Amino acid sequence: MNIALLGFGVVGSGVYEWCRDRADLHVTRVLVRSAKPAVADISTMDFTDIVSDPTIDIVAEVMGGLHPAYEYVSAAMKAGKHVVTANKALIAAYYTELTSLAREQGVALLCTAAVGGGIPWLVNLARVRKLDAIERIGGIMNGTSNFIMDAMHAAPVSFDAILKEAQDLGYAEADPSADIDGDDIRRKLVISANIAFDAVLDEESIPMFGIRTVTDSDIATFKAKGFTCKLLATAAAAENGVCAYIEPTLLSADALESAVPRNFNLITYEGVNMGRQSYYGQGAGQMPTAANVVQDCLTILRGEGCFYTDKATPMALDGKDESHPYYVRTAASDKWLEAHTAETWATGVVTGAVNTYEMLAWAKAKLADDPTLFIAGIA
Amino acid sequence: MNIALLGFGVVGSGVYEWCRDRADLHVTRVLVRSAKPAVADISTMDFTDIVSDPTIDIVAEVMGGLHPAYEYVSAAMKAGKHVVTANKALIAAYYTELTSLAREQGVALLCTAAVGGGIPWLVNLARVRKLDAIERIGGIMNGTSNFIMDAMHAAPVSFDAILKEAQDLGYAEADPSADIDGDDIRRKLVISANIAFDAVLDEESIPMFGIRTVTDSDIATFKAKGFTCKLLATAAAAENGVCAYIEPTLLSADALESAVPRNFNLITYEGVNMGRQSYYGQGAGQMPTAANVVQDCLTILRGEGCFYTDKATPMALDGKDESHPYYVRTAASDKWLEAHTAETWATGVVTGAVNTYEMLAWAKAKLADDPTLFIAGIA
Repeated sequence: MNIALLGFGVVGSGVYEWCRDRADLHVTRVLVRSAKPAVADISTMDFTDIVSDPTIDIVAEVMGGLHPAYEYVSAAMKAGKHVVTANKALIAAYYTELTSLAREQGVALLCTAAVGGGIPWLVNLARVRKLDAIERIGGIMNGTSNFIMDAMHAAPVSFDAILKEAQDLGYAEADPSADIDGDDIRRKLVISANIAFDAVLDEESIPMFGIRTVTDSDIATFKAKGFTCKLLATAAAAENGVCAYIEPTLLSADALESAVPRNFNLITYEGVNMGRQSYYGQGAGQMPTAANVVQDCLTILRGEGCFYTDKATPMALDGKDESHPYYVRTAASDKWLEAHTAETWATGVVTGAVNTYEMLAWAKAKLADDPTLFIAGIA
Repeated sequence: MNIALLGFGVVGSGVYEWCRDRADLHVTRVLVRSAKPAVADISTMDFTDIVSDPTIDIVAEVMGGLHPAYEYVSAAMKAGKHVVTANKALIAAYYTELTSLAREQGVALLCTAAVGGGIPWLVNLARVRKLDAIERIGGIMNGTSNFIMDAMHAAPVSFDAILKEAQDLGYAEADPSADIDGDDIRRKLVISANIAFDAVLDEESIPMFGIRTVTDSDIATFKAKGFTCKLLATAAAAENGVCAYIEPTLLSADALESAVPRNFNLITYEGVNMGRQSYYGQGAGQMPTAANVVQDCLTILRGEGCFYTDKATPMALDGKDESHPYYVRTAASDKWLEAHTAETWATGVVTGAVNTYEMLAWAKAKLADDPTLFIAGIA
């Protein structure tokens, strides 16, 4: 099968490498914005060269961003080409449009690399969904934030210092907000929830709290209490929709998540009859991420089509049945917090069981008063 | 597709449950040894009724044991039927014969449930092998032995007491030797190594040391030194074949394997370009194990055939490049051990780096002198 790459950055050149010696997949065209000597003979700056080329079977979008990725991918499907993408922003934002278009056109749309980099998470989630109903998904879905939290537990170090180190190592972007505030995880959670629950969720409405305000003193307190703090995503089947949220979470130090080092991910589903199964690996990296793009191409080559699931139903966020205790550190006094406080730790307080959505709404509002506020759910 | 079940025990009845409401898979015949009221209308005690029935597409062997399972499965393939099995002993013992026969007959032979119960280990190993070369596989591949080791770390308890508890809970057989001496793991490792390295290994020749002789004092020593002990399997690409072995292993207390609780498994591959990826879940259990049998049937329904890999090359065991320190506890003095001792712990000694195959051969021989001997590799 012939593949056209849209983009020749880190992932794109990885796809090119994986396919170089294969007899079944050939990268025959590459859309670039500037000359790339490695692929000079097959590169073009004009997307029309790709969409109008009848010899191209698969368009692999690895350019990132919403536009023109959305327009290119749509045009490719309308021209009868299968689409593989590593672009989580694109899939999360245009889930309904893109999956409908794929079905209409009878072409495949796969995005395994969009969640978990090289971890075969989405394909295994789709596989288990063929048999079982899913109760809950989530876990550690962002390597950069795990790198930061892991380092802060290993030695007393400030958030800013370790963020700088992550940036120097190339694990964090110059603008780290997507990784540390939860946006990146939220996109991955939306895509995963689509497959787990046939649900289309409104990304922007999913409440989240990131790790930007965690301090070395918080971590010292957690360790002294036998906890490890990780930034976790959760999406669970709920009575009237899906309960989805992202928050720092205190886990028993011997929990599996607590042992996840550096920039690794650990992503989990719990099936009604299957129980818990988890997938561990680096959630990024050139060759692993590119491998999932190439695996999607191999899936298409085997004739398995369309999207991971057949259904996509808009669903409400329903957080009313999810509650647990929270650690809260704030410099500003607060009546609501005082009313819910059950215990006082060295650096903050611990509440009794509080509704998750209520707490995340309170914390979001409270950040305006106290930008140093930090909260963490207690598992 | 129509499925005939050979056997209606724990896994067989699970397969029946999973398929009950499906439109695509139908259990239409069940081979039983005694009357089973739940499937009275479709059961038979005569295998001929199944092998000669042209409406049966897939024979799912869930009876266990080598004979007559081997004869039935062979006859089914010769009659043009696809075979799915959960029988690790069968696949490990007759790997070459069965995979050759499947290819000859153009039928599928799948055994995902044979390794890791409901964990999708073999399918993901086969998936990554389509792209990458594997350097190493292994991990915690037996739930019973992990249940025992986990409990012995949680509280001071003797091996015999916790084994009894595992038996009472149904996690361990009346004769526990396959689980605690490594035989069960060895079969799973042979099947996994087949797929990882295209290698046919001689099961009986793979060296192993089990957990039968571990004591609560050993565990107390390990914990005091910051280690956790787990029974691990390893198979690594080697210069002249594959280096495969099974041994208790001391891991840093913060290693991912150290956090694996109860009867869970954690199985890992390391790809040359993919790096490490691990699969976590319960390695047994009715519905999860049956789910992998049904998933294999769905794979066949999609038209993906034969075995996980196309090649099967007899390969030698080559342990010459694998060495590491060992913990050794023996009541009998030993010149060889004295010559290799680097350190003395409360209950035993620690060697310098010793060749793994040399140590496992020494330990096997030494057990004749000292049946209480315990050894553990240090990762």
